[in-house]
This record gives sequence, structure tokens and C-alpha cells, in this order.
Amino acid sequence: MIKIGIIGGSGYTAGELLRLLANHPQAQINFVYSTTNAGSPIASVHEDLLGELDLNFTDTVNPDVDVVFLCLGHGKSLAFLQANVFSEGTKIIDLGNDFRLTADAQFNGKAFVYGLPELNRDAIKTAQYIANPGCFATAIQLALLPLAKNSLLNNTVHINATTGSTGAGVMPSGTSHHPWRMGNMSHYKAFNHQHLGEIVQSLQQLQTGFDNEVLFIPNRGDFARGIFATLYTKLPADFDSIVKLYEDYYKAEPFVKVTTGAINMKLVLQTNNCFIGLEQHGNYLLITSVIDNLVKGASGQAIENMNLMFGLEEITGLKLKAAGF
Amino acid sequence: MIKIGIIGGSGYTAGELLRLLANHPQAQINFVYSTTNAGSPIASVHEDLLGELDLNFTDTVNPDVDVVFLCLGHGKSLAFLQANVFSEGTKIIDLGNDFRLTADAQFNGKAFVYGLPELNRDAIKTAQYIANPGCFATAIQLALLPLAKNSLLNNTVHINATTGSTGAGVMPSGTSHHPWRMGNMSHYKAFNHQHLGEIVQSLQQLQTGFDNEVLFIPNRGDFARGIFATLYTKLPADFDSIVKLYEDYYKAEPFVKVTTGAINMKLVLQTNNCFIGLEQHGNYLLITSVIDNLVKGASGQAIENMNLMFGLEEITGLKLKAAGF
Amino acid sequence: MIKIGIIGGSGYTAGELLRLLANHPQAQINFVYSTTNAGSPIASVHEDLLGELDLNFTDTVNPDVDVVFLCLGHGKSLAFLQANVFSEGTKIIDLGNDFRLTADAQFNGKAFVYGLPELNRDAIKTAQYIANPGCFATAIQLALLPLAKNSLLNNTVHINATTGSTGAGVMPSGTSHHPWRMGNMSHYKAFNHQHLGEIVQSLQQLQTGFDNEVLFIPNRGDFARGIFATLYTKLPADFDSIVKLYEDYYKAEPFVKVTTGAINMKLVLQTNNCFIGLEQHGNYLLITSVIDNLVKGASGQAIENMNLMFGLEEITGLKLKAAGF
Amino acid sequence: MIKIGIIGGSGYTAGELLRLLANHPQAQINFVYSTTNAGSPIASVHEDLLGELDLNFTDTVNPDVDVVFLCLGHGKSLAFLQANVFSEGTKIIDLGNDFRLTADAQFNGKAFVYGLPELNRDAIKTAQYIANPGCFATAIQLALLPLAKNSLLNNTVHINATTGSTGAGVMPSGTSHHPWRMGNMSHYKAFNHQHLGEIVQSLQQLQTGFDNEVLFIPNRGDFARGIFATLYTKLPADFDSIVKLYEDYYKAEPFVKVTTGAINMKLVLQTNNCFIGLEQHGNYLLITSVIDNLVKGASGQAIENMNLMFGLEEITGLKLKAAGF
Repeated sequence: MIKIGIIGGSGYTAGELLRLLANHPQAQINFVYSTTNAGSPIASVHEDLLGELDLNFTDTVNPDVDVVFLCLGHGKSLAFLQANVFSEGTKIIDLGNDFRLTADAQFNGKAFVYGLPELNRDAIKTAQYIANPGCFATAIQLALLPLAKNSLLNNTVHINATTGSTGAGVMPSGTSHHPWRMGNMSHYKAFNHQHLGEIVQSLQQLQTGFDNEVLFIPNRGDFARGIFATLYTKLPADFDSIVKLYEDYYKAEPFVKVTTGAINMKLVLQTNNCFIGLEQHGNYLLITSVIDNLVKGASGQAIENMNLMFGLEEITGLKLKAAGF
Repeated sequence: MIKIGIIGGSGYTAGELLRLLANHPQAQINFVYSTTNAGSPIASVHEDLLGELDLNFTDTVNPDVDVVFLCLGHGKSLAFLQANVFSEGTKIIDLGNDFRLTADAQFNGKAFVYGLPELNRDAIKTAQYIANPGCFATAIQLALLPLAKNSLLNNTVHINATTGSTGAGVMPSGTSHHPWRMGNMSHYKAFNHQHLGEIVQSLQQLQTGFDNEVLFIPNRGDFARGIFATLYTKLPADFDSIVKLYEDYYKAEPFVKVTTGAINMKLVLQTNNCFIGLEQHGNYLLITSVIDNLVKGASGQAIENMNLMFGLEEITGLKLKAAGF
Repeated sequence: MIKIGIIGGSGYTAGELLRLLANHPQAQINFVYSTTNAGSPIASVHEDLLGELDLNFTDTVNPDVDVVFLCLGHGKSLAFLQANVFSEGTKIIDLGNDFRLTADAQFNGKAFVYGLPELNRDAIKTAQYIANPGCFATAIQLALLPLAKNSLLNNTVHINATTGSTGAGVMPSGTSHHPWRMGNMSHYKAFNHQHLGEIVQSLQQLQTGFDNEVLFIPNRGDFARGIFATLYTKLPADFDSIVKLYEDYYKAEPFVKVTTGAINMKLVLQTNNCFIGLEQHGNYLLITSVIDNLVKGASGQAIENMNLMFGLEEITGLKLKAAGF
Repeated sequence: MIKIGIIGGSGYTAGELLRLLANHPQAQINFVYSTTNAGSPIASVHEDLLGELDLNFTDTVNPDVDVVFLCLGHGKSLAFLQANVFSEGTKIIDLGNDFRLTADAQFNGKAFVYGLPELNRDAIKTAQYIANPGCFATAIQLALLPLAKNSLLNNTVHINATTGSTGAGVMPSGTSHHPWRMGNMSHYKAFNHQHLGEIVQSLQQLQTGFDNEVLFIPNRGDFARGIFATLYTKLPADFDSIVKLYEDYYKAEPFVKVTTGAINMKLVLQTNNCFIGLEQHGNYLLITSVIDNLVKGASGQAIENMNLMFGLEEITGLKLKAAGF
């Protein structure tokens, strides 16, 4: 059994980790750290876990766990690790964005590996520290990796993606207030979203010298879960060959499905899957990519990384029933 | 033109008042009081009013307006009136619950009249102070008044009603956080909702000695606007006669429609209407009542009261396009 | 491995069965019968199963399967069984309502057992034919069984329950048309819902001579999945003792959780769980019951029954991640 | 009073016309033609109009009305006009797409004028026949007209727009089935939407020789009403000057509001307004455009055209309360 600690236990990604780990055959949750809820039962916050997880939040960190998941707000992981020392062998999976860029990825003399299995599986297997990708970044990279792998990203990349309200976290705010959000749509951080850095870094890892524009408009959608992304770029090439590149890239992947049929976002909700839809329109390739932002876009992928780091089958605990509706 | 002041200008009921008054032919908005937004344009908070209302919030009260609408949190109207003195003739319409019960309805030596036109139209016309009914209370009373008028409420009244998230106000909270509320349903204050007092008071006004149980379960619905209420009581009587009582009671009413066909909540959204549906099942009469909580349930009814108090046609400014969808 | 046939394969309950069985360790899907989609891949209809289930719909029935799930429209199961003969030992689980009432439960000289494990577990284990309960009926019975067991249902039972749009099935209709349903609420079949029969039958099974009124208003909610039910009845008794009766009744049950805290519908979505919330208000006991209509209310419970019939652990394949959001 | 006939009376755009015309001071609805509902009251289909419009659907056309609104499915208006002859002076406003392109715009020896007031106001005033713009086309053109007017569209135009489910009409279908649509997102007709023709035609009207690519991805959103469109194009120019061009273009327009602040779709719902938000990001101009697809995108704009054609003030009957929430 893997002895697990979770830091920042009352947020959405921690809740999703707990829901997933409660059914993971090798997981033993050792402690769930939350300063605000210390002493209260886990199920007082993550109420669907009533009767599933007989454990209280704690404000004490046990340094001797096998793996720690950091579910803190963005920018808080580094400070936490500086203030809390773990055992030498403890693995760390950071769901925040502190260590995703190579320039920031050093800690304690070791490098964080960017935890996108479809890009870095081998490095993940031997890593001690993992920077788990962002949710938008996951959907977008999975849509583009096969092109980068084949050096086919030679024009501007246009991205429009919409996220559910869980993407904004558990803290209520004006744009996640139900009366405002319900039946509404809006965008934010157009052309400037913080995930662009990790996206470009991964594309450059596969396609040396990639420096085309990547234009990204993120939207707030009227749903709680999911990311729906459409991407297009000029790519005058035989469509069947392009489809083949995608199929080849993902043929051994357990969670990525490629299709030339129409897809919709609900196909992947509550699962660790990413569906990739491909269409050609004149000189443009249109790629549609959908994930569940809390599963493949966060906690599911974090467990996928844990599985790889501990030598388990990658899908362990991640064969999830699709939501359907 | 009626010179109008609005107190508590940044909340939902104030916003709805402003949207309605912006198209009211006799309304002149003199000031909109908000301590938190003083100095900012109205449209910085109620953004749909961009270009419609060229006015800033203020933290100064003008005592010389013709009418003041109090859109404060429940329990704050009395304190506000004690701290801010208006001109002798200024009319006051309180959208809060401070003055709805007769026992609380005295202020400055004058009584607040309970502002449900379908019950108290004549008294409203000559009143200086109005206590505007609660949203649930409006939907529920309109469903029951014809029975009380005819002394037919002789058994327990069972009520189940669901409200949209705007009913909880503009301040974000856990139960109005979009991820939690979307696709969800829950109840609160079962059997104890604060509107029961005004409901029973009105029933007793029409049916002397009424003291049967009124059991009320309020629910939180997955929509932003609207109240959907079902009520039933044992009433072994000829159905056609009962329908006739309702039709008679409401035949001259501009905003209440009675039908024996199926109704749904969206029929009345964005309007000042109340639809009443009637069915008989064995010995039980089932009454369905739907309103828009922000219009007939709050700001629309407040304007209806203003119209009556100033001798205008009751529907002035309240011929609103139904939402449809 | 259990060899499985599914009849009526393109509907919602069949889709949910397939999603669940795809991860069930003992399930082998032998055929999925659909006259309208024969020859097409399963994933052409249940698109989230792309890559999971490499199988086509068929219009040929294999009589030699171990178990058949009937996912036909209500009233069509009997006709299907008369036209299609299965092997002598084939078990049948009917998700329709043809065989739920004792009076209708005979077929082929054998009786259908009403498949509510919390009521009939032992009989289910040895049954060949199972009538799977209705979705409303499941939520409502689980709320009432402990009272019936203790002969405490001595007054009228008042029920208000709201269902998601999947409850109306896969065929588009006016009341499941998105523009109409979104942000709306309505009721249907008030006091007359077809599930009342099976509910009363079960209550009488536990509380001999039960014949009080059961008044039930079913509503259409603005969500796709879930049932939210509130029930109350006059029950002047010590609250702690009542809670104890519920805890005792459900203490060994894997899927029913009893609490005196507030509950909401989303706690159980995508799971086979039922959450029961208890409150006392004066002489009334208020019971809140929530399930996922497609899982515990249909396909999950059907698999639970299959597990019992084949001697598997009851929770096999049913440890599902809660939706959370 | 303007004597009005409506053809195709049971659809969404006809319903919205009726809701609007019911409060229009100069409108007299003479007949509402519907073959499927002939003989039934208007309120049996458009139920919110109960008590507002005492009229039945008819299958007889009165040729002597002042104006006819055609609310038929796309492609059916021409056939209808060929089969039904109106009086010589009867004005026709077609809400379908039969006559929007100049090449198709001839009928009876007269040309249909493309009814976008912000582009063709003067021509509309004297026109007898109007082709009312498409909903997407309206939102998109209003976002681009000031640039075309100033010949600033010199690069590819990228458009991503999401529509509510009412955009698909009153007939239930798989992609408007509530269980599928709720909480979902998808795209359709990418790069090929039928509104591209009228959009490009209008741009060419203002910017001679415009022939850049216009790339458009239309999406299906999880809401009933509204269009949320984002557009960007390379435009290296001083931002303040661009904003000024927009403000100049729209300064006298009653329904278009330009802002550099953040906007969201709900600002315009239930109104005839279009909000245009402007941002500059490097060399790109980002334009956000939001309308209500049934009002400014269809029936409201049709009435705006009627007002212009009959010499009324353009806003007559179109001062609508914004939905707010």
C-alpha cells in the first residue's frame, strides 16, 4: 500500500483525489492536511464521502509518507515545501503551477518532471517530483502533441477553450456566483492565460525551434465540470495521413481516443479520458479536445502519475464510469 | 414625474427596480444609495444598464424625494429609517421583512400596510408606508386567498416551493456557488421559513379564526429566477365551483391568471404575472403557483404598489415581455 | 464470467448498464439487442464507450446467456418474453414496470421477485426473475422502509420528488426539449404516478394492513440526473429513537447512508448510493432521500441484483466515484 | 395601427414576435397562420400569452394586411410567397434566409433589402421587402462593421461563437434533448456555417474588395437564449483610435453599446441590445459581441425593421427590461 499525504485538503482537486483514492486498491490515505478544517471529519467538507473515509483533517504533516499531493493555490507549493520537510524518499506531486516551467522546476537539488504521461512517461516513472499539468494545458497539449512530434506546427495556432466553474475553485466569487454564471458565457485572460507557458514548452520539447504564435481565448462556461477546446492551424496536408499521425501517437495510450466523428464534452466527464476529434477544412486542420478538468485535468492525472512512479499499472483506480448524462 | 430614492442600491432587488424604472414613464430616479459603491456609476454594478442610466451611486440620502424604496437586507430597514429622516410626505416602500407583521408595522406613529394588491389594494392606495411581501409569501398567498376569502381552508395546508438562486441575494455563498448549485437540489428551513408569519396573517385577515397547520418545505432550485410552488389541502367540493371562486377573485386582476391546464415556471419569468393552476384529485385540491421572484416577488410588486400609491394605472411600466425561454 | 444479454440497447438504462458492465470484473457482454441500431457499433450510440466496448448492436437474441437485462419501454417486457424464449436457466432482470406488482409477477410458472435488495435480499439471491424497482419508487421506499418495518406509518404520507430529464428517456419530447426544460420546473401525474403501486405493496409487506394515504407529487427538474425526494408524516415520537431505527435498518447496507445533517442531491450522483436525511419538526418526521435515477434508480440496482443472484459480493463493479460536481 | 399577419406561427421566432407585439402600441395582430395549430388559441402554444392575446391560429391567409412576418423554416419563404399572393402594398419581413444574399433577393420584380439597421437604415425605411439577418450574422456583423467601414479588415478574421438551444428551433432533436445538451458543449458546421455568405456580403458593401478569409466556428451552448461571439484579427493600430471608430459608428445607434470593459452574454438577454467589447492584445484586436438570438438576432430586429418601414420611432415597443439573471 502506498502511504499518502494530501496538502490543501478542502479544495476541489483534493476532494476529487479523495474520491478517486477511496476506490484505489493500493492507496492508503495517511493524512489530509487542512488548516481551516483541522479536527473535522473529511466528510464534513467532501460530504459525498460520508461513510467511505473515516478520517479527520489535520494540521500536522507526517513527513514519512510515500507520496504527497500538493493541492494548494497556485504559487503556494514552493513556500509550503520550504516550510515543511519530508523524508528523503517521499515523492511529491504538485497540482499547482509552481514547478511546471523548466526554469522553476528545481527544488532541493532535484528537478520536477512535467507530469504529462503522453509526453514524459519514462521520465515520470523515475521521477521523485512531479509538476502536474494545468487543466487547459492538458486538453490543449493532447490536441497538439502529434503535430509537434512530426514538426507540423508551422503556422499560428488558434485556440478557443471553455471551462466549467469548478476550474475556479471552491472559493465563491462573483463569476462563480450561480445567478451570474447560470445561462451565461464570458471570457477572461484572453491571449494571456498562464497555461501558455507550459504549452509552448512542451511543443518545443517535441518540435525543436517552435516559435509560432499560440493565440488562446479561455471562456467561462455554464457547467460545473469539463473543458471543451477547439484548435486550428493552417496545415495543407493529406487528411488521412494526419489522422494516422494522431492514431499512431495515441495507439498505446489508455486514456486518449482519436476520432474523425463529432464529439461533445460530456463524453469524457467523470473519466480520465481525453477525446480528440479531427476535421479538415480547406487548408486548416480543426482539432477538438475534451477532458474533465478535475480528472484528466487535475486529480486523475495526478494519480496516473503516482501509478507510474510506483510501478503500478497506469490505469489502476482510473477505470471510471463515464457520466453519460 | 415621481422623484425616487433607492436605498441599498447594489443588490438584486435594487438592480431589478432600476431596470424596471428605467422604462417607467413616470419615474425619475433621484438617487441610488450604496455605501459600498458610492461614487461609481450605476452601470458599473448593474452592467446591463450601460448607457441607460447616467447616474452614480451616492452615500448621501436626499430626504425630499416622493418615494423611497428600501432594498436592504432583512432586519435592516428599521435601523435605516431611525438613522435617516425623510420629508413628512415621503412615501416608503420596504422590500425587506421588518414591517410585514402587524405587530411590527408601526413606525413614526403610522402603520405600514402589507403591500399585496390582490389583498389590500384600497389600503395601499392611501398608505404612506408599504411593507412589500416576501417572494415565497407572494406565490403562496395568491394560491390561497380565494379559499380563505370563502372560508374554505379547513384542513392542513401542504406547501412545497422551490426558488431560484437570485432569492439568496448578490453575496456569494456556499449554496449559491455555481459548482454546488448547478444540477443540484436541496431544501432549507423546512417547516420554519420566515415567510410563514405573513402568510398566516393574510389568511386570517380573510378567514377569521384560521388556525390550521401550514406546512412548508422551501427548496433551492437549479435556476437563477423563479418560484415554483405546489400546495394542496383537503377540500371535498365541486371542482367547477372552486375554479369559479378563483376566477371570480382574480377576474379584475391585471397580473394573476387562473387555469386548469398544466403550467410551468417559465411562463411568468421576467414578468409581474402569477399563474395559478388548479387540479382536483379525490378530496384534495392541488394548486400550482408560479412567479418571478424578483418581479412579482419583489421589485415589480414594489412598483405596482408605487403606481397605486400615486394614482397611476396599476400596470404602468409593468407590461413586460415574458422570457419565453 | 457471467454471459450477459441486453435487450433494448439504445436507451438510457441500457447505456448506463454498458458503462457499468464495461468495468465489472465478472461481466462478459454477449449481445446487445436493438432493432433500430442493429449492425452499428455500440459506441455509435453510447459514444463515451468509444474504444471500450468493441461490439455491434444486433437484432438476434442469443437464448443461451446467463442473464438478460430487459431495458424496454414500460409495458413491453412481457410481450418480448412471450416472443423470445430463453434457456431454462437464464436469469432475467426486467428494468421495466411489467412485473413489479405481485398480481402481475407470474411468468412461465415462476414469480418475479421485486428487486429491492434492502427489502428482499434473500429472495433475490435465489430468484431467477427479478423486477427491478422504479426510480422514484426506490428513493421513496428507502425513505420509508424503516418506519414500515416498525409499524410506524400510521398517518398520511406526503411526498414531493423531483427527477432529472434522463428519467423521461432517450426520445426527445416537448418537456425534455432543452429550451423548455432549462431553468424550468413543473409537475406531472400528481397523486397518480404509476410507482405508487409498488411503493404501497412494499410498505404493506413490512407493515401488515398499511392503508394510509400516500400523496405524491412528482416534478420535472432542471438537471439531467438525480432524484430529490422529501417525505413527511405525523410521527410523535422521540427523534433519537427514530434515527436509531433507520441506522439499525441500514447498518449493514453497503449503499444507504443515514444522516441527521443537511443533504443535497449531488452527493449521490453517478453512484449507487442513497442518502437519507432525517429531521423532526414538531410532530412531523421529515425524510429526505436522494439517488441517481440511472444508477441506484435503474441500472446500478440491476447489477446489484445480478451480483446477488450470481453469488458475487454485492458491491462488485459498483464502487463508483461520486460526481462531486 | 399596423395590421399584421404572421406566417409560421407556432415556432420560436413567431412566439417572440407575438410577445413583443402584444406590448407594441401601434401593432394590431390580424392573423397568425399555422397549419398544424389552426383553430387552437395562440396561448395553447405560446402559453405565457394566456389572457394577453385572445386569438386563434388560422390556416387562412388574409392578403390585405399592412405587413407580413415570415417565420418559416429556412428555405421555405420563397415557396410560400409563390403560393400566397398579398396585396400590392403589403410589406414583407422574412425571418428566414431565402432572400439575404443579393443574388437571391429578387421577388416579384422588387429587391429584398437586407434588414440590418446599423448597415442599411435608409434603404430599410423605403423598402417593401426585408430580409431579416441571421442571429449569428447579426452578432458578427455588428462586431465588424466599423472596421469594414474604415477598410481595416486586411487580415484573416477569426470567429468563435456559441448559441443557445432556442437557435435550433422548436422541434425536439438529439442535440436539443435536455439530457444531452445540459452541461454540454459541442460545435457544428465549423468553417461552413450558412451565415458566412451574408456576413461577407455586408463587409464587402462597406469595404470594397474585401476578400480575406473569415473563419467561423459555431458552438452549441448550455443555455436557452443568447449568442456569445469572440472575433479577432491582426490590426496593428492605436487602440484608442480603434475604439473611437466603434464609438463613432454606433454613437447614434439605440441598441448597440461599445465598451472597453469586460462583458458577458447575460447583459443583453431579453433585450434588443448588442454589447460590443473591445480589447487589444499585441497586434490583435479582440472583439466580443453578445446579443439575444431571439430578439436582436430575430424577432426584435424584425420589429425594428417594421418600425423603420412604417415611419415609427425605431425603438417603439423595443424598450425591454434586461433579464439581469
